[in-house]
Amino acid sequence: MDGLKAIHDSQKINYRNPFGAVEIGQKVKLSIETNKDITVALEFIQCNGSLTNIGMSKEYLNNGGYKYSVEIDTSDCLGILEYYFILIDGYGRVYYGNNDERLGGIGQMYNYKPIPYQITIYEKAEVPDWYKEGVIYQIFVDRFYNGNEDGTILSPKDNSFIYGTWYDNPMYIKDSEGSVIRWDFYGGNLKGVIKKLDYIKSLGINIIYLNPIFKASSCHKYDTGDYENIDEMFGTNEEFKLLCQKAKEKGIRIILDGVFSHTGDDSKYFNKLGKYQTVGAYQSKDSPYFKWYRFNEYPKRYESWWGVDNQPNVEELEPSYLDYIVKSDNSIIKKWMKLGASGWRLDVADELPDEFIQEVKKAMNQVTKDNVLIGEVWEDASNKVSYSQKRKYLYGKELDSVTNYPLRENLINFIKGYIKSDKFSKRIMSVYENYPTENFHANMNIIGTHDTERILSVLDTRIELLRIMVVLQMTLPGVPLVYYGDEAGLEGGKDPDNRKAYPWDRENNEILNFYKRVVKIRNKEVSLKQGNLKIYNTDADVCVFERCYDNEKIIVAVNISNEDKDINIEGPYVDLVKKNNQYEVVELNNIITIQGYGYKILKKV
Amino acid sequence: MDGLKAIHDSQKINYRNPFGAVEIGQKVKLSIETNKDITVALEFIQCNGSLTNIGMSKEYLNNGGYKYSVEIDTSDCLGILEYYFILIDGYGRVYYGNNDERLGGIGQMYNYKPIPYQITIYEKAEVPDWYKEGVIYQIFVDRFYNGNEDGTILSPKDNSFIYGTWYDNPMYIKDSEGSVIRWDFYGGNLKGVIKKLDYIKSLGINIIYLNPIFKASSCHKYDTGDYENIDEMFGTNEEFKLLCQKAKEKGIRIILDGVFSHTGDDSKYFNKLGKYQTVGAYQSKDSPYFKWYRFNEYPKRYESWWGVDNQPNVEELEPSYLDYIVKSDNSIIKKWMKLGASGWRLDVADELPDEFIQEVKKAMNQVTKDNVLIGEVWEDASNKVSYSQKRKYLYGKELDSVTNYPLRENLINFIKGYIKSDKFSKRIMSVYENYPTENFHANMNIIGTHDTERILSVLDTRIELLRIMVVLQMTLPGVPLVYYGDEAGLEGGKDPDNRKAYPWDRENNEILNFYKRVVKIRNKEVSLKQGNLKIYNTDADVCVFERCYDNEKIIVAVNISNEDKDINIEGPYVDLVKKNNQYEVVELNNIITIQGYGYKILKKV
Repeated sequence: MDGLKAIHDSQKINYRNPFGAVEIGQKVKLSIETNKDITVALEFIQCNGSLTNIGMSKEYLNNGGYKYSVEIDTSDCLGILEYYFILIDGYGRVYYGNNDERLGGIGQMYNYKPIPYQITIYEKAEVPDWYKEGVIYQIFVDRFYNGNEDGTILSPKDNSFIYGTWYDNPMYIKDSEGSVIRWDFYGGNLKGVIKKLDYIKSLGINIIYLNPIFKASSCHKYDTGDYENIDEMFGTNEEFKLLCQKAKEKGIRIILDGVFSHTGDDSKYFNKLGKYQTVGAYQSKDSPYFKWYRFNEYPKRYESWWGVDNQPNVEELEPSYLDYIVKSDNSIIKKWMKLGASGWRLDVADELPDEFIQEVKKAMNQVTKDNVLIGEVWEDASNKVSYSQKRKYLYGKELDSVTNYPLRENLINFIKGYIKSDKFSKRIMSVYENYPTENFHANMNIIGTHDTERILSVLDTRIELLRIMVVLQMTLPGVPLVYYGDEAGLEGGKDPDNRKAYPWDRENNEILNFYKRVVKIRNKEVSLKQGNLKIYNTDADVCVFERCYDNEKIIVAVNISNEDKDINIEGPYVDLVKKNNQYEVVELNNIITIQGYGYKILKKV
Repeated sequence: MDGLKAIHDSQKINYRNPFGAVEIGQKVKLSIETNKDITVALEFIQCNGSLTNIGMSKEYLNNGGYKYSVEIDTSDCLGILEYYFILIDGYGRVYYGNNDERLGGIGQMYNYKPIPYQITIYEKAEVPDWYKEGVIYQIFVDRFYNGNEDGTILSPKDNSFIYGTWYDNPMYIKDSEGSVIRWDFYGGNLKGVIKKLDYIKSLGINIIYLNPIFKASSCHKYDTGDYENIDEMFGTNEEFKLLCQKAKEKGIRIILDGVFSHTGDDSKYFNKLGKYQTVGAYQSKDSPYFKWYRFNEYPKRYESWWGVDNQPNVEELEPSYLDYIVKSDNSIIKKWMKLGASGWRLDVADELPDEFIQEVKKAMNQVTKDNVLIGEVWEDASNKVSYSQKRKYLYGKELDSVTNYPLRENLINFIKGYIKSDKFSKRIMSVYENYPTENFHANMNIIGTHDTERILSVLDTRIELLRIMVVLQMTLPGVPLVYYGDEAGLEGGKDPDNRKAYPWDRENNEILNFYKRVVKIRNKEVSLKQGNLKIYNTDADVCVFERCYDNEKIIVAVNISNEDKDINIEGPYVDLVKKNNQYEVVELNNIITIQGYGYKILKKV
């Protein structure tokens, strides 16, 4: 096989057409080029695991090479189809498959069975425009704003602590074994969110995602005590309804955090501490909730989330649980949507069975199709395997959106100089290729959440890097999420430091105004919200990409070095972030200089 | 020396006259009786350490025995005079001295130099009647009552915690090395004390002793930050003045806690954290406060109270410190008295030089003679040695009163059955013998403070034992102190459990009413306040004592067993604690039955 060369680029329609994930039944044409006249077969593995091997037809190229093509049918297969090429020359046989990094695009030759390429095959499902075109604001309620008069804190919990001042540093109060022995509160509540709706609106936000708000012992409320009621420190069910109404009047949707893989031990269901009036699973095997939990040794030993024994795991598919949470007419999922929620974010989706997630989406659609279901998934959700199962998140019947943690990691690596722009763009393109278009545009683009360090701290409080971060976040495809306080310059390391209270009256206005400016541009430009993506590799420290929608085109360029860099683009463009906030025609049409740590958002005119 | 018997009972005037401590210059007649005609000398050690040996004159007794007596002069000696007897028979020599327990009363023979008896010689100093006849209420301000509207907490400290509810269990928030890393507050304040003055008055209280209230980081405020100002969470200097005024209108005095052996590290004087505007000793050797502290290695290593490095020790006799705290016209001692305080309690008096305490008392007298100075001393203060120095607390120029922890221990031991009534009475008599009368009647009789477990918990929450405890506390000589909440049935183990918030609306009314009843009897009966003490030993489980003043006599009897016990007394008496609260003549004059766990307070009519 000496001297044999081959090329397949899964991201070029010359080699694979159409680009990316496809709707079920759609035909996909796959091609590979070689410099020798050989025999080429395509081998592909359908989602059911069956292996198919088909010959490819040859054509002669003008450059003296050969192109082998075949069209495959995707009707039989919902999920991931994997493929690679077998190149046969006489008795010799080599393979061509995906690159080592499994990122798609140009692949490589192998002497053995290669890493395959992926085609995601999905059923079409539409994600509402308000979501795909939106900007999300994430609120950890206890830490956002206390809407009571004079900062009064209503219904504080027994044996809990309230921070002395709003600006205190958060801390966990733990025993020597690391268990939290007393919960800590600042006193933020739903009234506070209502009072700050105008502020949120002024940021250009149209979606609020609330961390859990149902009754629970902790400050984070991932240990649900009662799915039916708002935690009394946060407010009342009526106040939640009011929040949804008031938000709606301002064009803002509310998304809730659904924690369904476990409950709190201090809950009306488990009731380990006996604080609830119900008979909990911990108290009696006759409890109506007994079957929800998995006891190893009743009642003291039970399965729990990551071994944290105040969060016992539930059996999601146990009929009484599924009914209560999902399927019944006034299930938890439906109840809160009827009260005004527009969607749910599923906590630890990897822990939830596919069937459960499908039932959730079905139940949501029964209330209104105009909803969004987001899954907490930390990796590429199109090919995620959890507990040895390929997950069906993005095949059309489950999630609309996932938490795009891979983007966060990719952005940080590029902006901090750990990877170059080519690697950065390859990683983005890989997700673009693997995700159904709707899901790609609905990707929840986070640069920080309650589970990560604050972005400003990650960037060593370098505001020039934060600006680049925000420009990329707001202009790449997907739905940007602003973690409360990031826009005000809040710093913080790992949990709990990343859950400081919003710094009212101490905002960093430079950062705040920058956020507002960039979000405003995003909200105004349809191509930033809906446009296709094309990334150009020019310089290792520069990332340039194009977003196109109909005839509109926007070029975004950032330079993460401290030296000026020139890029070639066809003008004329206007610079959307000129300081004076006025659109201004860029003089020339060929070379644009991006200053050190600079950025441009240019719109073709 | 076979068959030689001797007796001296320092508590009987037949052997020592007058009883107890004496004013300087007063003559004391000492006698010893033997069954043989021998030679007896008295050897005594004056406070200056000089040993004197004088012969005693013999007289013949009707019973065939011999009595040896001598009168000694106390003019040369202020402090403790120690004595014992040398019994010489031919070439033989034995000694007679104090008993092994060093409690005075009947002593014992020794073949070697014996434990001496003690005569306390003092300069007369009068303690104001309002104190000697008073009942004290101790308030740990943060835990008593929040007087702000709706329980608002004003000026909480940066990086502190407020308890979620008033009824939370207190806890320290410590790091793995045991240092407090964040202070905890309930929000009690001076306004709260003002609002509860009527409650306090209703208990029969006429003196409030406040734990420290000056600005400081902690909840306990023993780490003073600024002696000149009330802690802003507790209130203002104006509010303190108002408290004193309002209290005075109700006949209540205020006593402050003076913490002068150390300051806080977070103080305007030391200023380790740089939170104060001043230049602190930690910050610069040019600080005006530099000389106050003892640095081993500037600035990081310094002497501190029990090695707790947030409480650096001060050099009390350093002139600038002494001036600031004590001597100057508007010294701390004087300033707060001018604002209304009637006295000071000196924290850790053992750590303060005698000279410092003398200067404090002098300074207090310059403001008004009508003051009281109390020392925190955990043992018999008449012969206390600290840092190898005999302390001069009770010689007339220092303390009026000391914290009577020995009584607490004695009461607990007796009531819980660990010691019998004879040992109990001996320990009381020892203090009676050793203390100047004024100080004995001014003894701060505590059964619980912020530094001990709650008395109800010590008594295993047995209310029948608590009743006996309270009866004894309120009828024995000394000034009873009620630690806030004890009267309401508050329980609690060691610090911080003994510093729970006062259980407003959750009081144990049975206990509360009992306290009120007994305090009322005490307040009404002059003999309980000023009367002499005479203890009778009848039964191991019964304590009977008499308090006499002029022609009035009260007999108190308690029975710590569960069986009825009869006592013989000469009647007729009225029973002051009859349930209907009406005075009623006791039928007979000979035998009175004290029921199991019963008590009587009987007044001779």
